[in-house]
Parts: sequence; C-alpha cells; structure tokens
Amino acid sequence: MRFSFVGGDSGLWRVLSVSAVRGDALSPVPFLNVCAVADGELPSGNWRLEGLISNLRYATRAEVASLRAVQEGLGRPTARRAALIPIKKTAEWWSLAQDERRAIFEETSHHTAIGLAYLPAVARQLYHCRDIGQPFDFLTWFEYGLEHATAFEDLVARLRSTPEWRYVEREVDLRLERV
Amino acid sequence: MRFSFVGGDSGLWRVLSVSAVRGDALSPVPFLNVCAVADGELPSGNWRLEGLISNLRYATRAEVASLRAVQEGLGRPTARRAALIPIKKTAEWWSLAQDERRAIFEETSHHTAIGLAYLPAVARQLYHCRDIGQPFDFLTWFEYGLEHATAFEDLVARLRSTPEWRYVEREVDLRLERV
Repeated sequence: MRFSFVGGDSGLWRVLSVSAVRGDALSPVPFLNVCAVADGELPSGNWRLEGLISNLRYATRAEVASLRAVQEGLGRPTARRAALIPIKKTAEWWSLAQDERRAIFEETSHHTAIGLAYLPAVARQLYHCRDIGQPFDFLTWFEYGLEHATAFEDLVARLRSTPEWRYVEREVDLRLERV
Repeated sequence: MRFSFVGGDSGLWRVLSVSAVRGDALSPVPFLNVCAVADGELPSGNWRLEGLISNLRYATRAEVASLRAVQEGLGRPTARRAALIPIKKTAEWWSLAQDERRAIFEETSHHTAIGLAYLPAVARQLYHCRDIGQPFDFLTWFEYGLEHATAFEDLVARLRSTPEWRYVEREVDLRLERV
C-alpha cells in the first residue's frame, strides 16, 4: 500500500512546525494531506513524499506479540496531534549485514522497547521509501492526544540519543494538529 | 538501482525455455533484455518485469564475508548461460516476524549455505519487487558457463526441496543463452 504525504494549502492536518533536525529541511507549508498515491502536478511551493507499508524488518515474534497486545490504530478521535518525521540513514548503515543492523536497532538502542513504553498513547506507522527513489528512507508517523504531547517529546528525545541515531544523516520533524 | 527485464523480440539473451514451476507462467518470448528502467509502450506479446537492488535482508556479517570471498560478478565472458527465476511468496511468509523468516531461510533451509557451495561457478543477483506493485516478490538472476549447467540444476533442485519453498506460491523459470 503506497501513500502520499502532500504538504500544501489544504489537508486534514494543520502544520504547527517544520524543523530540520539534521540535514536539509523541507519547505514550510500550512497543511499536510495523507492520501493514496495520486500523480499529477503540484501547485508551486507544495511538496510530496511517498512511502509504503511493507513487512517487518527487525522485530521478533515475541516483540510483535508485545506490541500487538497494547498498540492502537491510527485515526483515533482523541488523537488530535500527529508528527511526520522523515528519516534518511547513512550509506554505512545500509552496508551493514542484517545481524549488525538488528544489534544496533534493538540490542544496543532498544528501539522497539522504547516505543513499547509509550503504547498505547502514541500510535505509530512506518512507511518505507528508500527503494522507490525518494529523498528519505522512511516516513515515520505518530498520532497522540494533546495530553500525551510531553510523553511524545520524551519518546523522540530517547530515540535520538541512541547509537542507532548516529546512522541518521537527514531528519525533518513536522508537528501537526488535526483540523 | 531499478532494472527492467523485458521479454520480447530482441535482447542480449535468447530464451531457451519458459517453465511454470508453480502458479501462472509468463508468455513465451524469443529474447530477454535487461536494462535500466525505461517506461513507454511495449509491443504486443511482450512483457516487462521490474526489480531493484536493495540492502541484504537475512545474511549475517560472517555469511556476507564468506560469500564475498568467493563470489564473482555478473557479465563474465565465460558465463554464456543465465536463468531468470521470478518468485512470489505467500501472504503467510510475509506475515512472519524477522526471526521466524530468518530461521526458515537459513537455520532450517540453509539458503545461503547452499548458494555458497556453487560459488564462484554460479554468479547471482537478487532484485526486489514486492514493494513496487509487481506480480512477483523477487527476480532472481543467475549466470554460469555451459560446463556448470548440471551444477546449476542441482542448486535449483536443492533450493526447491527446502522448507522455505513451501512459502513459494508462484515461480517461473526462464533459461537463457547469451546471443
């Protein structure tokens, strides 16, 4: 399933901020729309990122079971806030073997374990885009209620302080509010 | 890097056979061309499969080192024969967690170890296509000299007899001769 994230003059989500965490930013836009992929021209000043939902790449069966026991889906009426955080990892990351990437991802950085600590408050969805000619490798998407905004900042800060994040060469952070 | 495999009336490789191993076949064509992706209309009776080279999904660092120590690249002048074997795996396979897929792939099916036994005689390249809307999940490509044709049959038979192949729902086998 392929999705478009279109920044522009309309959309379900009002853009509260666009921050360049590392590397080049994206141009500021007032709204973000998330939709099934649509081709065609974009109005000037707009941008479009595309990503797709794929199979799991690192999680073990035990981790999947832990996540599924507590996570909730996207689109909850109480989740008025969202974040779109596109990420590109370094060539060094992608040249690592599967066991090396897994060890950094979980055994040393505890990526899944950290995310689990914020469930079900923060709902997540990962979109892959490295293999489809996009400027980022992943579009990470989070939805949460305003009462969990502080917890979400904590989650993001913890992930950015992990060894895994040494392999991030571009990261942009868009914070969003449901219209 | 995205590649097209175009079956039609011209190409670097003459098609010796097109066999449906499991599921629907591809229509027979006299030639196959492998090229960088080109869009546009195809002549009637032709088909095009697309795939891309991506990062490794299962191999450990030790396995990568073993493979790299002996494998040779594509395009050797002595490699007059090739095989294009597009494969689609079942929904059940893709719903497995990473550790479950890895265990089937290597610990019980010895996929990498079997391939290693036929290096450097058989050069290989894997192209991914599940995430780009293609009818197969992988396009597997092999090149070898005529003197290794029997060894190649042995390699293919061994892989097809593994537990991993229970998760293959469509497989077509094209054998090719360099023009």
